[in-house]
Amino acid sequence: MLGTLIIGAGFAGLSAAETLEKRGDGSFVVLEARDRVGGRTKRGMLGDLPVDLGGMWMAPSQTELARLAETRRVRTYPTYLDGKAIFQFGGRQRLGQREELGPLLGLRGGIGYLLARRHLGRLMEPLDCARPWAHPDAARLDATTVDSWIRENIGNRLLRSAFRTVTATLFCAEPSQISLLFFLHYLKSAGGLDVLISADEGGAQNLLFHGGLHQLSRMMAADLGQRVHLRSPIDAIEWGPGHVTARSGARSWTARNAIVTVPPTMLDTITFTPELPRAKMALHDRLVMGSALKFWVMYDRPFWREAGLNGTILSDEAPATPIMDVSPPGQKRGLLVGFFDGDEAIRHADMTRRERSRIVIDVLVAHLGEQARTPLAYLDQDWRAEEWSRGCYGAFAPPGVLSSYGAHLSAPVGPIHWAGTETSDVWTGYVEGAIRSGQRAAAEVAAPNALAISA
Amino acid sequence: MLGTLIIGAGFAGLSAAETLEKRGDGSFVVLEARDRVGGRTKRGMLGDLPVDLGGMWMAPSQTELARLAETRRVRTYPTYLDGKAIFQFGGRQRLGQREELGPLLGLRGGIGYLLARRHLGRLMEPLDCARPWAHPDAARLDATTVDSWIRENIGNRLLRSAFRTVTATLFCAEPSQISLLFFLHYLKSAGGLDVLISADEGGAQNLLFHGGLHQLSRMMAADLGQRVHLRSPIDAIEWGPGHVTARSGARSWTARNAIVTVPPTMLDTITFTPELPRAKMALHDRLVMGSALKFWVMYDRPFWREAGLNGTILSDEAPATPIMDVSPPGQKRGLLVGFFDGDEAIRHADMTRRERSRIVIDVLVAHLGEQARTPLAYLDQDWRAEEWSRGCYGAFAPPGVLSSYGAHLSAPVGPIHWAGTETSDVWTGYVEGAIRSGQRAAAEVAAPNALAISA
Repeated sequence: MLGTLIIGAGFAGLSAAETLEKRGDGSFVVLEARDRVGGRTKRGMLGDLPVDLGGMWMAPSQTELARLAETRRVRTYPTYLDGKAIFQFGGRQRLGQREELGPLLGLRGGIGYLLARRHLGRLMEPLDCARPWAHPDAARLDATTVDSWIRENIGNRLLRSAFRTVTATLFCAEPSQISLLFFLHYLKSAGGLDVLISADEGGAQNLLFHGGLHQLSRMMAADLGQRVHLRSPIDAIEWGPGHVTARSGARSWTARNAIVTVPPTMLDTITFTPELPRAKMALHDRLVMGSALKFWVMYDRPFWREAGLNGTILSDEAPATPIMDVSPPGQKRGLLVGFFDGDEAIRHADMTRRERSRIVIDVLVAHLGEQARTPLAYLDQDWRAEEWSRGCYGAFAPPGVLSSYGAHLSAPVGPIHWAGTETSDVWTGYVEGAIRSGQRAAAEVAAPNALAISA
Repeated sequence: MLGTLIIGAGFAGLSAAETLEKRGDGSFVVLEARDRVGGRTKRGMLGDLPVDLGGMWMAPSQTELARLAETRRVRTYPTYLDGKAIFQFGGRQRLGQREELGPLLGLRGGIGYLLARRHLGRLMEPLDCARPWAHPDAARLDATTVDSWIRENIGNRLLRSAFRTVTATLFCAEPSQISLLFFLHYLKSAGGLDVLISADEGGAQNLLFHGGLHQLSRMMAADLGQRVHLRSPIDAIEWGPGHVTARSGARSWTARNAIVTVPPTMLDTITFTPELPRAKMALHDRLVMGSALKFWVMYDRPFWREAGLNGTILSDEAPATPIMDVSPPGQKRGLLVGFFDGDEAIRHADMTRRERSRIVIDVLVAHLGEQARTPLAYLDQDWRAEEWSRGCYGAFAPPGVLSSYGAHLSAPVGPIHWAGTETSDVWTGYVEGAIRSGQRAAAEVAAPNALAISA
């Protein structure tokens, strides 16, 4: 009998495998539904350059991802920030030196931003990301949507609009759908709102990888060799004390433990026997995967830099926002990356890629000028259409979910342990969270008695 | 080629079939996943009496259900209401002559109830149940949870607790999870809160069927004969202008139209080619099926009546509530029916039926006395465990869903029309809504050009 079945070869599953391997527990298989590893990171070709169709950035505080890149000798470069960013809120366009939203919104907007941030900070203060449901005001915060909070706490019209736009870019979902408790949990797990929205030093959009983040997963998988099984979607898991069997069609694997890294929103594609605890099923029934359409545009050179712009466009009007300059140094092309997020992703998903490219290019022309009319290449990725992710970046919690069923996200069920970025209490929703969740699940497998609860 | 494929043999599908048949459009098949018809109505045996494990009551304003019962000569009887009901809120037990909550909650609670009702009435006033997203304040109402509304508008502690309990009994979900806009829509579609909570004349719990509501579906199916195919779960639907093919394993059926009555929360079990509009998928991804565990208890006689009680128990403390006396006249047994709703259903689902029966009997003994200790029979139904319903009574909308994607609930997609109680704007969530939705979809099939939109 194998030691451990790892379901999913994204960063969570591969990190779990790496952790087990390091500890000498090499008796495992990694079972992946797709014909590739990497999960919500993925390689695409933009012209002749490999690019990230999924997760791509690294914040300096993402130490596990940094360690991984270092051991694999994959180098980073910073997002291009010299020059001015373009901000458009409430019909007004402003240029800014940095990404700070406050000062760009006028005096009232700026003061409002400071007050809103302070209020969020106060609400976050007693929140323990390992147990957000234990927040002293959890029930009330979890019964409130982010949009309700914005309506009640932000008087300035421009700032309200900016806050909604920023929320949609972070969660790939509309503020009216997201629990305030979950919002606070997500922010705090990454170090706060400023970290999440920034591309400056310390920010979540600070560093990029030469050759792409996605390649790290291939390198990790290569080290695991034959133990990674692609094209093995698991449709059933049977479990009992000390044993788990996973089935993929006629094939099956049995081990003492399992680490399941499938997104919580997709666990209903697996039939568990016996059934999972009902509260865990309720959690899966209620979490929702974000909606993101990511696009890349390549130009013969980053012409916007010549006009003193850094390529950043954040707008409450453009359907495709934010947009950033992520051109790798050491080559002459200009590369912009951007997103349709939340309802904009939903609204633009039924189009053809060509129709979407026209909309993106219209946004670029409006803000960067006529030179944006003729890109060398356009590429986009609709994450809802990825059968084994069904959305990006991560799952969010609607109201009343985290406080009631949150503990079931990562609590082991008999011999089954749970990983995936949604189960992490540090950088949840990011690749860093995925890596840490895999390490944590591997540690649980090592000391099951300390952690396992029965169904 | 057939005229119409009807997917699902609940009341929506059977009513669609009956409507087509009456119009002379008899070229259809009804494809049902289960080995029975009836959907979220179902027959069970309590001792030697057939009872309804699902939908069971009829309000006098449910005219289509009444017509159906009349043509099938199935007679009704009223819920037993003579004597006093037991209400327990905030630790205090009171007896009441009627079901009205207000007067039972003391002077302040009573006034608070009137004010809350008036406020809900004002919010409902401009709501058109055919287009709730067109409410002038739709965005704000849809960004608010019912629990937020309760916190802001009900000062009295007892009344707040009563309101939360009543909401859970109506929606089988916690108030913190439900959009206020959806709540208002649901209430108005049935004629208001008083209608929904009442078993008096005019109320949703007023009338019961001799032999059970479930039998109507079997009678309808019998009239359709060989055109009803049981054990035919549809896993794929291919569609284009003027044609639809539905596949169940190796079998397939092709027709000019389809009427799909599968609950919106379960449409992801069918692969549509081409895909459904993304906004419709977003709707399905976000709606949540309610959680209900229904139980029946049989005694040798309705002994509580001897103590001047009518068997109704509504409590914010008991896990199993409400409970009502539904003993059919013309026999001597005493029959109580009750529910674990919302989180109580979730909390009690992992138990055995025997463990649950002990909890129910403890509640009955606490309120009705020691005579409740020894029932003749106990029966319960966990609706989440029904593979083809995955919950009951109906789906609810978390915040930010109805206002954004609501129009996609019933808008046709090419030749595919949508029915099921969730798509109805009259008595949505009830059998009446299911019947009307089937009739409406059948009417659409008759005049497709007037209604169909392309994907």
